[in-house]
Amino acid sequence: MSSDFHIKPEIRILGIDDSALLNEKIMIVGTVFRGGDWIDGILRSDITRDGLDATEVIGTMIKNSRHYSQLRIVMLDGITYGGFNVVDIEELYRKTGLPVIVIMRSYPDLEKIRSALRRFSDGELRWDMIKKAGKIEKLVTKKNRTPIYIQKVGIGAKSAEKIVCLTSIRSNIPEPLRVAHLIATGIIFGESRGKA
Amino acid sequence: MSSDFHIKPEIRILGIDDSALLNEKIMIVGTVFRGGDWIDGILRSDITRDGLDATEVIGTMIKNSRHYSQLRIVMLDGITYGGFNVVDIEELYRKTGLPVIVIMRSYPDLEKIRSALRRFSDGELRWDMIKKAGKIEKLVTKKNRTPIYIQKVGIGAKSAEKIVCLTSIRSNIPEPLRVAHLIATGIIFGESRGKA
Repeated sequence: MSSDFHIKPEIRILGIDDSALLNEKIMIVGTVFRGGDWIDGILRSDITRDGLDATEVIGTMIKNSRHYSQLRIVMLDGITYGGFNVVDIEELYRKTGLPVIVIMRSYPDLEKIRSALRRFSDGELRWDMIKKAGKIEKLVTKKNRTPIYIQKVGIGAKSAEKIVCLTSIRSNIPEPLRVAHLIATGIIFGESRGKA
Repeated sequence: MSSDFHIKPEIRILGIDDSALLNEKIMIVGTVFRGGDWIDGILRSDITRDGLDATEVIGTMIKNSRHYSQLRIVMLDGITYGGFNVVDIEELYRKTGLPVIVIMRSYPDLEKIRSALRRFSDGELRWDMIKKAGKIEKLVTKKNRTPIYIQKVGIGAKSAEKIVCLTSIRSNIPEPLRVAHLIATGIIFGESRGKA
């Protein structure tokens, strides 16, 4: 499950972010990047707010894309989308064959998440999905002093770090996620905003 | 009205494209670029299909943006958006103070446009707006053999050419428009498509 591999500067990466919790259906946006430079395509789907369809919807979006055969990595902005719609990253990896790197700006407050999950009848199931996403590792790159935190499946630590470094050229967040965030907020609010 | 000015490699450019004609309201997407490289922000508004509000909506979107004070150029993909909603580029320049460069992939079939405008009660008004957008010039850059056609207001021929060259790094279409097109089609159809 953990492997290091050669990384081309133009490696195709899909970064996925979600939009604000304004409706029952939450838009998710995928950006297909070559390395950190060049946008090759944009994907869009909808998931259910606080539902459990994120893994299925993201997997299908990827497999239906004309970029699928070229993609080598999926990057997620945390593992909960559209509220508490948890992505099962192992399942996503199995379904698509693509390694997944999860990026977090700060170490998640797991106790707070666990507590919030108590209001869900299937809260334990969601908590299990969060736990099995594996170890959360701190990553400080030479270029960026601000640390980020990552989880991964299907890819070794060295390769994951290389890909994060290669693509974090404008901030400490990889470009595929930074731009997915700009698009998701810009389309919904009329102008992009926030942490990107 | 025509002036050449110094162009920094990171000049802030807004590229605007529209989405497909699926509804009465047509989404338009703006990408704020630094030169041809770096996406700074995303704007979104809606115009009326075959309406006459494109100039007003685009002008307001620009002036309300937090990027407004940094923007130096607006790039349009032709001058009709959302069907035959013609942008009055002189008015847009007056309203925003920003020079406008219109990019066209091929020389427009003006007779066909004029003929289509006959079904509008205000077809003559729209035709006048198209005519006053000025001379359509062919532009072949050293990097790109495929010619494009441009119109402009508020900027000299040399500066317009420099900006087109600076930003056309992935194809013969400037990045702000190429990416606006990817976003507009990707968000509406689920995956970006077409001429970008």
